[in-house]
Amino acid sequence: MNSLALHTDFYEINMAYSFFRDNIHEKKAVFEVYFRKNPFENGYAVFAGLERVVDYIERFKFSDEDIEYLQQFDYTVEFLEYLRNLKFTGTIRSCLEGEVVFANEPLLIVEADLIQAQLIETALLNTINFQTLIATKASRIKNLVGDKLLFEFGARRAQEMDAALWGSRAAYISGFDGTSLVDAGKIFNIPIVGTHAHSFVQVYQDELTAFRKYAKYNQRCTFLVDTYNTLESGIPNAIKVADEFKGTDRVFEGIRIDSGDLSYHSNEARRMLDEAGYYDTKVIVSNDLDEDTIASLLLEGAKIDGYGIGTKLVTSYSQPALGAVYKLVAIEEDGELINVIKISNNIEKITNPGLKNVYRIINKETNKAEGDYMTLAGEIINTDEQLRMYNDQNPFVYKAVINYKLHNIHQTIYQDGNLVYELPDIEIIRDYHKKSLAILWDEHKRYRYPARYYVNFSLNLYTTKHDLINKYKEV
Amino acid sequence: MNSLALHTDFYEINMAYSFFRDNIHEKKAVFEVYFRKNPFENGYAVFAGLERVVDYIERFKFSDEDIEYLQQFDYTVEFLEYLRNLKFTGTIRSCLEGEVVFANEPLLIVEADLIQAQLIETALLNTINFQTLIATKASRIKNLVGDKLLFEFGARRAQEMDAALWGSRAAYISGFDGTSLVDAGKIFNIPIVGTHAHSFVQVYQDELTAFRKYAKYNQRCTFLVDTYNTLESGIPNAIKVADEFKGTDRVFEGIRIDSGDLSYHSNEARRMLDEAGYYDTKVIVSNDLDEDTIASLLLEGAKIDGYGIGTKLVTSYSQPALGAVYKLVAIEEDGELINVIKISNNIEKITNPGLKNVYRIINKETNKAEGDYMTLAGEIINTDEQLRMYNDQNPFVYKAVINYKLHNIHQTIYQDGNLVYELPDIEIIRDYHKKSLAILWDEHKRYRYPARYYVNFSLNLYTTKHDLINKYKEV
Repeated sequence: MNSLALHTDFYEINMAYSFFRDNIHEKKAVFEVYFRKNPFENGYAVFAGLERVVDYIERFKFSDEDIEYLQQFDYTVEFLEYLRNLKFTGTIRSCLEGEVVFANEPLLIVEADLIQAQLIETALLNTINFQTLIATKASRIKNLVGDKLLFEFGARRAQEMDAALWGSRAAYISGFDGTSLVDAGKIFNIPIVGTHAHSFVQVYQDELTAFRKYAKYNQRCTFLVDTYNTLESGIPNAIKVADEFKGTDRVFEGIRIDSGDLSYHSNEARRMLDEAGYYDTKVIVSNDLDEDTIASLLLEGAKIDGYGIGTKLVTSYSQPALGAVYKLVAIEEDGELINVIKISNNIEKITNPGLKNVYRIINKETNKAEGDYMTLAGEIINTDEQLRMYNDQNPFVYKAVINYKLHNIHQTIYQDGNLVYELPDIEIIRDYHKKSLAILWDEHKRYRYPARYYVNFSLNLYTTKHDLINKYKEV
Repeated sequence: MNSLALHTDFYEINMAYSFFRDNIHEKKAVFEVYFRKNPFENGYAVFAGLERVVDYIERFKFSDEDIEYLQQFDYTVEFLEYLRNLKFTGTIRSCLEGEVVFANEPLLIVEADLIQAQLIETALLNTINFQTLIATKASRIKNLVGDKLLFEFGARRAQEMDAALWGSRAAYISGFDGTSLVDAGKIFNIPIVGTHAHSFVQVYQDELTAFRKYAKYNQRCTFLVDTYNTLESGIPNAIKVADEFKGTDRVFEGIRIDSGDLSYHSNEARRMLDEAGYYDTKVIVSNDLDEDTIASLLLEGAKIDGYGIGTKLVTSYSQPALGAVYKLVAIEEDGELINVIKISNNIEKITNPGLKNVYRIINKETNKAEGDYMTLAGEIINTDEQLRMYNDQNPFVYKAVINYKLHNIHQTIYQDGNLVYELPDIEIIRDYHKKSLAILWDEHKRYRYPARYYVNFSLNLYTTKHDLINKYKEV
């Protein structure tokens, strides 16, 4: 296993060095990962990236080669020896993969020696930003298509190999049915799909021959019908070959249309297949699809059984970055954690101080989420009492809730450097996402203009934040 | 070294299987990689990805684990044994990294057994698509800023780890001066840069203390001045600390502004630094920059010495996918390569048939490129004669050139499976890009509305293509 400790920004190491020289590197510090706005103007996001974070933390180790590389800079020998022996010894609490999450709440919280917490920033953001983004986009698409089939086809357009691999996993978490990428299938145990490309038809030059050959050597056939002409050649040839193998063990599973007017062609395809008696043969479409084109196809009543989604999902084309940040919220002073804040003229950029808990407030009657409730660590909630969830800007604005139960959205992953969480199988994660989404009102899942979900404060957190703001204003 | 053979789409393996069963898998086939439109409406693109392609080909080997995974599908034992022993034995010709390239010309040409050429499609596109895209965007930005400093800062927002790593390399190829990503520095020998983050100021809570501490432990200081208030606190504190260390070995290299009105703040920063006598201290800016924001800053006359470019470069935010494709252009029949074409109702999607050579036609007098000239392999060009470069749609439209020399844009990388090309050092690649760009007229390098560069045909290639189109129309 390669060391990944150098997968970090140079300033992290320079800061680590200054902290070390100043002898504050082993102060406890608390950082949290969060994003400021739901991507795609979606009503929620889907957390993903934890498995990769664990992989990274396990490989957070400066190898001899790494130390040798760092020797060219002006660091002391003591510092380099310290790095050589450094392991992650802190505590990480995180949302589970598949969890529905929202802007401004911590997705993952690191409580560790300042030097460690600082050094792992870049890699954590690199992986959580991407995977959460793709899982969110995939979930948006899944909401639209319901129980139609969804396949991730993006590897060739993904932003390098890791993106192809982890992107297809993120899509599967959010309800996709499979991926075209074989190593994703092998590594993550995701169903893989795929039959043939245009080049297969080109190799035989004649479409009918190509389909016959494919059916000769493969039991389950989905023919790509748009190499020459979808309606005049592709579909008739597919039906012809299916007629020829009727009565054998061959299955005419589907046709795939990868160009042209998908709405018109899919309806015509359905009609032609039905007329030939192939009622169960599926019409699959692909070609730069995303939630916008799918919404349009659905509105037109296109008769489509499955979608192959490539470029626009795996690169998150409509918004290719999530923008999650990693901010210091508390630091040790004289043996105690004190809350800190980062002030900005831009109100949204003011951080929420302190080590926190975040509870999803679930109405016992409806089993739906009323909102998320952020407290400082250590606050006790008496669920027998009415809960007041305060707006983060104004204490006169609050939502009152009764008859609720709590779901703490974080789970301890590392405790004092020990991995105390067992990474679950992908099917469990996928199921977890389904359940997490099920407790959300449909109003938050709308494709456009979703209802705002409350992410509110305890009075204690509200007061702590505003006291800190006032303190800075006085300075 | 991990096997990468399964980093492929499932349909590639299914096609491979059909070819194998049909006993045509060892027919020679020629595929080429190309894109159909320059990204960003730029006048050109910059080829990158070859080093990674070589890494992939060297690791194109089905491991025992891979074969075991594939056993769950309906393949014959013979096929799986064939895969187990498969190595790449073909020939690859490619543009060199840093080469200026254009839409519709082959970037990389694979001549190999059909089965091999098909199986490597996905990985080749995955890597060339991304790296070429980032190199092109970086080159666009470099053209705008001239000799100002450019740093790649995108790791935390990159689409997973490979994208951060290879993205920073692509940026460096196209003229960036360094990256923040340490492992990119170590692996690719790229200069790394970075001093401190907002969290460093937050840890000390007091900005002045933070700057003093930084200067105490680091010789070269670039202070991040926007944690609280750039003009009222950040820059005055930076100057104060620099005044304090005057006469020591400390160097006040720069200030970095990461938020707010970068134009106004940079001008004020320059004025304040000059007034304090720090004429050589650089003003560096960052914050979601790309070529559009930089163009605006330049037009306003912002006094900026360097730019840190993150999210919008490494994700290629304005266009996150290149869309390069991999198309069959020739296949063996009866022992000879015959040219093939893929027809489409969409004229741009009709492929250019045949194994080709592409020559950059360089005017001997101006040393500038007149255009690229595509021929079928084997055509001889007599440079003493006038050259007619034909439009691919119409033989009456041609450009006539005299007094020119030829630059074959492809070099042989693999010959019959042997790596015959030595991967150059990154500085050589960077220099190659500079030279490749230098022979382009400035008109093609415009940020907006660049002049169209000719990518034209030999008469032979023109005739071959149109004969094939007519042949298909007759069918």
